[in-house]
Amino acid sequence: MNDPLSTDPYKGVRDFYPDAFAREEALFARIRQTLALWGYEEYDASPLERTELYEAKTSEEIVREQTYTFTDRGARSVTLRPEMTPTLARMVAGKRRELVFPLRWFSIGNRFRYERPQKGRLREFYQADIDLVGLPEGEADIEIVTLAAQILRDFGASEDDFTIRMNARPLLDAACKAAGLAGESVQKYLRLLDKKSKMSPEDFEAASNELTAKGPLAIIDKADATPEVALEKRKLLDRIETLKMRGVRNVVFDSSITRGFDYYTGMVFEVFDTDPGNVRALFGGGRYDRLVALWGGEAIPAVGFALGDVTLADFLETHALSPKSDSGKPRLYLGTPDESALPAAQAFADTLRKEGIRVFVNLTGRALGDQIKDAVKRGIPFFAAYGADEAANNMVRMKALATGAEISLPLRELPARLREGD
Amino acid sequence: MNDPLSTDPYKGVRDFYPDAFAREEALFARIRQTLALWGYEEYDASPLERTELYEAKTSEEIVREQTYTFTDRGARSVTLRPEMTPTLARMVAGKRRELVFPLRWFSIGNRFRYERPQKGRLREFYQADIDLVGLPEGEADIEIVTLAAQILRDFGASEDDFTIRMNARPLLDAACKAAGLAGESVQKYLRLLDKKSKMSPEDFEAASNELTAKGPLAIIDKADATPEVALEKRKLLDRIETLKMRGVRNVVFDSSITRGFDYYTGMVFEVFDTDPGNVRALFGGGRYDRLVALWGGEAIPAVGFALGDVTLADFLETHALSPKSDSGKPRLYLGTPDESALPAAQAFADTLRKEGIRVFVNLTGRALGDQIKDAVKRGIPFFAAYGADEAANNMVRMKALATGAEISLPLRELPARLREGD
Repeated sequence: MNDPLSTDPYKGVRDFYPDAFAREEALFARIRQTLALWGYEEYDASPLERTELYEAKTSEEIVREQTYTFTDRGARSVTLRPEMTPTLARMVAGKRRELVFPLRWFSIGNRFRYERPQKGRLREFYQADIDLVGLPEGEADIEIVTLAAQILRDFGASEDDFTIRMNARPLLDAACKAAGLAGESVQKYLRLLDKKSKMSPEDFEAASNELTAKGPLAIIDKADATPEVALEKRKLLDRIETLKMRGVRNVVFDSSITRGFDYYTGMVFEVFDTDPGNVRALFGGGRYDRLVALWGGEAIPAVGFALGDVTLADFLETHALSPKSDSGKPRLYLGTPDESALPAAQAFADTLRKEGIRVFVNLTGRALGDQIKDAVKRGIPFFAAYGADEAANNMVRMKALATGAEISLPLRELPARLREGD
Repeated sequence: MNDPLSTDPYKGVRDFYPDAFAREEALFARIRQTLALWGYEEYDASPLERTELYEAKTSEEIVREQTYTFTDRGARSVTLRPEMTPTLARMVAGKRRELVFPLRWFSIGNRFRYERPQKGRLREFYQADIDLVGLPEGEADIEIVTLAAQILRDFGASEDDFTIRMNARPLLDAACKAAGLAGESVQKYLRLLDKKSKMSPEDFEAASNELTAKGPLAIIDKADATPEVALEKRKLLDRIETLKMRGVRNVVFDSSITRGFDYYTGMVFEVFDTDPGNVRALFGGGRYDRLVALWGGEAIPAVGFALGDVTLADFLETHALSPKSDSGKPRLYLGTPDESALPAAQAFADTLRKEGIRVFVNLTGRALGDQIKDAVKRGIPFFAAYGADEAANNMVRMKALATGAEISLPLRELPARLREGD
């Protein structure tokens, strides 16, 4: 297997060195900002969950084949959360008497899937889960889809950059019924449909025919579908019209959208990149009205979506929309002419920190020229040396490393100058 | 075992509902702010690590008895990280040729320990790890201890609120040697010392006597200790003097501080609450110069510390220093006189969001009086209703929920008023 002291991370997970961390953070900071403006509050839970949570309602395939599940020393079966919705439902059920509904909640964190090694498939990825809990279908669905679009817009995306493909589980259910499917066969058909985009049309057709001779998708397309199918289709098309009138114009009906999880009960949607080089779904969500009721009590309706870091970053890169990620970097590199100057330099740096300036102090005995090179390598925009002369004269010489421009100025003017920007 | 659909989280881990999340976030936001001012950059890695990483150098007891370790489906042994330092060392070793040293790095995240069920001991806790990598002992040690103190000061703590107890592994090693201990016995003695505060003086004495008749601690205290002991003690006392001169006046020498991990090679320290009701160590750290070299190449010296969320929160609560945690809450509750007003209310809310105002829009058919009660329950400071009248007159009536004061104002003045504060 691996060299015991390999520096590689565990297979399928990523190390976030500071630059990568800053990029990831910039991504989620933007999402947090949008969500706060819409009144959504952040929550979190441990990635360790009792396995029973997923056996209850997540897709069976995911629990059986795609989770990290192990037994702890107390003989409890533990699973590293593959998705957040069951945890959210558990937490809502646990405090259903105390919580003030509706809840506008979101959570950002890592999810784990035991994927077969495959290009671009990670075993740990980060995801933002956004949910509106406690309202029946209607305005809540409109808000959730609008918010999904708004998050991309707030990164600078235009409505031409992505399409929201929408369907509804009741419509699929009605079509399955019209096609003669019932019980387990409906679930089988929906799972097949979820894989449609990864199959050849012939393979899909063949697998579909094994379940039913009449294709549910063909029934949906027919003008003379059953009244139930026609009604559900009309409801869905109305919702799409409403969304368009309310400013989300890039929503379309797509009868093949179903989502992989069993718990959806209403609208389902997936957001697709319109760039022909990046055709897969970016993210998606839907309505799940019966999940919280698994813990007893009345059903608490809910609707939400989740977007992952890798697909989002790909989308933003494709469209040249990746956010800038240097906001936490030091502003000033404080150099020292010799090691005896270090204590005074740290003390001076402290006065700058009290003014809110991020300072990186040199602690090495390198020559000043090498310290300037070091500052450039680190991407720190300003350099100033501080030693006995500067302390005696209350003056400092500051160099802007992007332009090479230098100015001399009194020590007390340094914070204001550093705040001004390059 | 557990009810399969219990709403409890897995044993020993916590759910962070929005209020708890906001408290936790406020804690680490303050720490991030201090660290950014000192030029520290954030990094992260997966909690999943190959088990070999800990077998290499963490305390044997921790790996054998206190980790979550399991075998994945590819027969790899995986451990949920119990601490961050081995991951840091692995990452530094992995890019030692590309990284610009010294590194000022930190990471905030969850760590896992398989503790026996015990009051107040969690199986998952959050920790900030702060390290300065690539400099030998000297100024780097001074900075790290100063920063440990500064983090508490930036929460408002005074130097009377905590004491930094300091020791040095070379001093302990010299004392062990003088007491006739060698090899494994030194490690045994240091581990015993690490547990001293949890034992009765008699039990410690007895266990110590089993290893050596001459107590290493007694040797350190003696005026006529061996020259090696005297030299190391002098070096440590000098460092403490330097720290005091540099503004960290609450550092004291404590020969019984050792830290639980085997990898320390220089200074070690622990920060204690001075409140008699909260005597345990808050956090600690030290110098570890040989850890990175386990991956080959020259040794890369390092020094750092880690502080956990639970002990820090206890300290801050004891001293009434817990930071405020409502910064992300909505500012305005936008009520609706009836359901037909919802689309217009959402559109108006959007204009406020574009101005940076966090808005919670009512989506229910509740009466306005109930919506105001709802806003109060949610802790949202301002309420305004928006319907056909407001849209027609371009005026809105805003209520400050803390005082009950109401004002009428033009719609376009609302953002400025909301920004003004209560």
